[in-house]
Amino acid sequence: MTFTIGVDVGGTKVLGGVVDEFGEVHKTARRDTPKEGGAALTAAIAEVANELKVQFPVESVGVSAAGWVSSDRKTMLATPNISGWNGANLHQELTGLIGLPVILENDANCAAWGEARFGAAKGKQHVLLLTIGTGLGGGIVIDGKLHRGAFGIAAEVGHMRVVPDGLLCGCGAKGCFEQYGSGSALMRHTREAIEQNPGIAEKLLARGDGTFSGLTGTMIMEAARDGDVIAIEAFRTTGKWIGAGVASLSAILDPETVVIGGGVIDAGELLLEPIREAAKRHMPFSEILPMPEIVGATLGNQAGLVGVADLARL
Amino acid sequence: MTFTIGVDVGGTKVLGGVVDEFGEVHKTARRDTPKEGGAALTAAIAEVANELKVQFPVESVGVSAAGWVSSDRKTMLATPNISGWNGANLHQELTGLIGLPVILENDANCAAWGEARFGAAKGKQHVLLLTIGTGLGGGIVIDGKLHRGAFGIAAEVGHMRVVPDGLLCGCGAKGCFEQYGSGSALMRHTREAIEQNPGIAEKLLARGDGTFSGLTGTMIMEAARDGDVIAIEAFRTTGKWIGAGVASLSAILDPETVVIGGGVIDAGELLLEPIREAAKRHMPFSEILPMPEIVGATLGNQAGLVGVADLARL
Amino acid sequence: MTFTIGVDVGGTKVLGGVVDEFGEVHKTARRDTPKEGGAALTAAIAEVANELKVQFPVESVGVSAAGWVSSDRKTMLATPNISGWNGANLHQELTGLIGLPVILENDANCAAWGEARFGAAKGKQHVLLLTIGTGLGGGIVIDGKLHRGAFGIAAEVGHMRVVPDGLLCGCGAKGCFEQYGSGSALMRHTREAIEQNPGIAEKLLARGDGTFSGLTGTMIMEAARDGDVIAIEAFRTTGKWIGAGVASLSAILDPETVVIGGGVIDAGELLLEPIREAAKRHMPFSEILPMPEIVGATLGNQAGLVGVADLARL
Amino acid sequence: MTFTIGVDVGGTKVLGGVVDEFGEVHKTARRDTPKEGGAALTAAIAEVANELKVQFPVESVGVSAAGWVSSDRKTMLATPNISGWNGANLHQELTGLIGLPVILENDANCAAWGEARFGAAKGKQHVLLLTIGTGLGGGIVIDGKLHRGAFGIAAEVGHMRVVPDGLLCGCGAKGCFEQYGSGSALMRHTREAIEQNPGIAEKLLARGDGTFSGLTGTMIMEAARDGDVIAIEAFRTTGKWIGAGVASLSAILDPETVVIGGGVIDAGELLLEPIREAAKRHMPFSEILPMPEIVGATLGNQAGLVGVADLARL
Repeated sequence: MTFTIGVDVGGTKVLGGVVDEFGEVHKTARRDTPKEGGAALTAAIAEVANELKVQFPVESVGVSAAGWVSSDRKTMLATPNISGWNGANLHQELTGLIGLPVILENDANCAAWGEARFGAAKGKQHVLLLTIGTGLGGGIVIDGKLHRGAFGIAAEVGHMRVVPDGLLCGCGAKGCFEQYGSGSALMRHTREAIEQNPGIAEKLLARGDGTFSGLTGTMIMEAARDGDVIAIEAFRTTGKWIGAGVASLSAILDPETVVIGGGVIDAGELLLEPIREAAKRHMPFSEILPMPEIVGATLGNQAGLVGVADLARL
Repeated sequence: MTFTIGVDVGGTKVLGGVVDEFGEVHKTARRDTPKEGGAALTAAIAEVANELKVQFPVESVGVSAAGWVSSDRKTMLATPNISGWNGANLHQELTGLIGLPVILENDANCAAWGEARFGAAKGKQHVLLLTIGTGLGGGIVIDGKLHRGAFGIAAEVGHMRVVPDGLLCGCGAKGCFEQYGSGSALMRHTREAIEQNPGIAEKLLARGDGTFSGLTGTMIMEAARDGDVIAIEAFRTTGKWIGAGVASLSAILDPETVVIGGGVIDAGELLLEPIREAAKRHMPFSEILPMPEIVGATLGNQAGLVGVADLARL
Repeated sequence: MTFTIGVDVGGTKVLGGVVDEFGEVHKTARRDTPKEGGAALTAAIAEVANELKVQFPVESVGVSAAGWVSSDRKTMLATPNISGWNGANLHQELTGLIGLPVILENDANCAAWGEARFGAAKGKQHVLLLTIGTGLGGGIVIDGKLHRGAFGIAAEVGHMRVVPDGLLCGCGAKGCFEQYGSGSALMRHTREAIEQNPGIAEKLLARGDGTFSGLTGTMIMEAARDGDVIAIEAFRTTGKWIGAGVASLSAILDPETVVIGGGVIDAGELLLEPIREAAKRHMPFSEILPMPEIVGATLGNQAGLVGVADLARL
Repeated sequence: MTFTIGVDVGGTKVLGGVVDEFGEVHKTARRDTPKEGGAALTAAIAEVANELKVQFPVESVGVSAAGWVSSDRKTMLATPNISGWNGANLHQELTGLIGLPVILENDANCAAWGEARFGAAKGKQHVLLLTIGTGLGGGIVIDGKLHRGAFGIAAEVGHMRVVPDGLLCGCGAKGCFEQYGSGSALMRHTREAIEQNPGIAEKLLARGDGTFSGLTGTMIMEAARDGDVIAIEAFRTTGKWIGAGVASLSAILDPETVVIGGGVIDAGELLLEPIREAAKRHMPFSEILPMPEIVGATLGNQAGLVGVADLARL
């Protein structure tokens, strides 16, 4: 058995794990994510890796983070959500701090690789992963390999345009998929359903402080499970948009399996059912062409860690 | 120098050519496309190939046609636009009729491969081709290989949904890219521009019989070149839709080169300029992420023939 | 075994049959429907009955016709689609002409009774039948009895309002169910789909004379079966409206079985599938309340004859 | 003279009464409705019944409550508005607590039965009752019997779809009658009239605290009686929707009398007049077909109690 370390850099924590060649996690370590980013964040990653490497015979380290990674997996090209990392040669810095080979990879790519190698799409050669969190990330596996593209920025599926002249997106374009099929979108769909019919929203609002601002995604999920029609409608609307996007992406990529992951997938069939229905309806030539299976992710929030640990193998 | 034959099955003609390993076409032969399809069409392909094979030492034959091709490139899975070929094992039939190994491939895939190997994207490893004819086809090259997907149906980029609940498409879904960025769409955009402002449309209409029905795509192209504002607007509208689609596809696939081919590309910069502008405008993080180059195809209507001849090499 | 005669008065023919107590038809007779209606039509009914009664020991006669029938089943209160019958005491006239007891009943009611006693809903106590022909008729069975209402005019389900300020209906009201979910509506939905995208309508139009006017319902049905997307879309749209109406009617009536009959149901699953989907989506409390089964009629165009023969039993 | 007890479970009080075979109430008892529902509510019902049964020779007890009741009237199948009663075998529990036979029935059904037997539709065989409170309930009498349907859930007339893709309803569907013709809808229509013309709304708003939130239904009713145009318009709009729904329901059910009950009917002709006008306008073939009479309920908030007491008779 051989070991590598995967470190997943999230918005609140830096989570590291020692992973074997079968995707099993043997030990984890964590630090809070330093809000200032930059060198402090780099140091936190090194601390996590160093804590773990003294306990297992580790051969290399992979780091999963939001942002675009150079083709040689050594440099963060741009990190819109992390301060002080634009252009950082993390490979060099971290190799120095840890004393082991280090590679970088985009977090959604890592999650896709984890699910394709060890999770919901284990053994499949053509896989599309959608990570539905606050935003909507994607990872693509083609012919058994992670698809990184010409510049290392492939799989930005959340920025496919789905509405002409639609909602402005954080990427600077309008009408992006992410604005309609994500955790943020779920909140918007909920707010719109409440505004349309405040009379039936009281029970949902009472789960928070009585106003929309008091609601969390978890409250909406629980309400939907208890049969609340506003909450169910919000999930259905979100799922319809995701399903239509899955149909478009399947027409382009032709995956055998589409994995839906990210925090919002805790909702399970509440989201998967409308996704499947909409994907079927919007798939071209749906009567004669095969459809990919659409399944929920199985590795939860360890998908990125497990995926990047595997990518780090020499 | 070694030779293979490529045969491109179009709506009006079956065009075959002897092609060398550098993509040069040494000899061509053609037949009219039999409208009844089926066995008559299969026979026409064999005739073309047999006429050519007696003149060159040919090792194998590739056939490029509209439709979905099985993973082993032996069977036409479904051919919505060709009668009598659904499920046909053309490999077996044609091998018998020609006496050489035969492979099949989707026509847009063949054109993409031709342009990527010998044409506008020569030497590039990540290429997206859009074929803008009556409809909108696509071909994708990833890591230097044609991307066929899990079921052999990848690159149906014309059926990416670009307008929610939009125009009904021939594929049975609604709002497909093809309905907004294709030769048919150019005609629709022209008609709409005429209806919106009939006063300035007289000169354009006079190129035909004075009514919209009398106009052809070629007339509109010539009018645009002569500065007709209705015609220019129609190309610009078509180009905007195509450019927005190119941005979405680039965000997903991350190609280094996007090749625009098909009959409509005869319009050249009339179409390419609005495509490039719109692609830039709709690309996510367009300030910080690299953009693919967007170029016109260079192999013209021989792209499919040349591409499939190369795919047929043993 | 005992026999009665059922006579179904349709737009083109008067069809009579000798029916036993198990709903089996032993002998039929027919006349063309006299266009002038009135006494000529009454005479044609008598001829059919008299031709049959000499061959079997018949005890009574039932007449099924479009229109409203008095509570005692003796008088045609109003017959918008038949000339010269408004207020006619057909019971008296026909008893005189035939020499047997005669009762009258509305045609959709008769079809409902036929299907509930001997057809698709055999043995069920609560049944709703929709007859989808040119228009949309209905019949209701409650607690094993035909529901005729206070004035004998119940089950006019085709005139439930489904769109506020919608299309004007032949009944003088607007937005009636019949205008959206019927054979006429199928034609309208087809025409609208053609107008929206004439480019993909050519194959469908070619089944007639190339224009919409040349199309028949049968052509559209055959095209849909052959996969024509315009035709499939028209059936889907029609089915969605019918399904939404079925949900409303089920919320009101709570049937165990909904039978879809009439000429359009020859389309089978092309229509039943979208009906079932839409009924499920629009049913109130669909997660917790039971749904009726939705099935196609099985007696075809003999449902009315068989139903009224049974109602005529003494 | 024989006696039964009827107990009506409302949102604020549990009201019981001893009722004779002529529908006269001889004695009442009440408890506040326990907000926690479940066993506490069951106990409150038993207390009310036990208090009454010691004063009169009572033979049985009926309980009227919001929710769906099993066909044998023994079990609450589902009670969306009452906690802890889903699936409760109240028959068994209450028979044990009271020592008399007990039956259950849906509250709108009970009110319909009360009005049909002893109230506004006394002696009628075909009756439709609409209960206009916060929501919109219904009860149907056919051939002199309460219509419960195949699964015991009939007469959910408030969930007939009246607007395609309309307002989301508490039942999970969209565009339900209840969203347009109910007490809640009256409030919405009022708010919309205020927003549309705030200049003339000041006097109405001054009846509360100057904002819309400070208005109650009673204030709007009083304002309408005093001639306030905003308030009158709100009643007229509500009445129009109800009348259109009455026309649809009459076309389906063919009642001889439609009774409008529930708290909102305190408004009397303010609501009944626009209901009658709209029903006439939207009735199919209104020139030739008979119309049901449309009347206000006469039993007030005792309709349910009186109705269920009668249904409990052995």
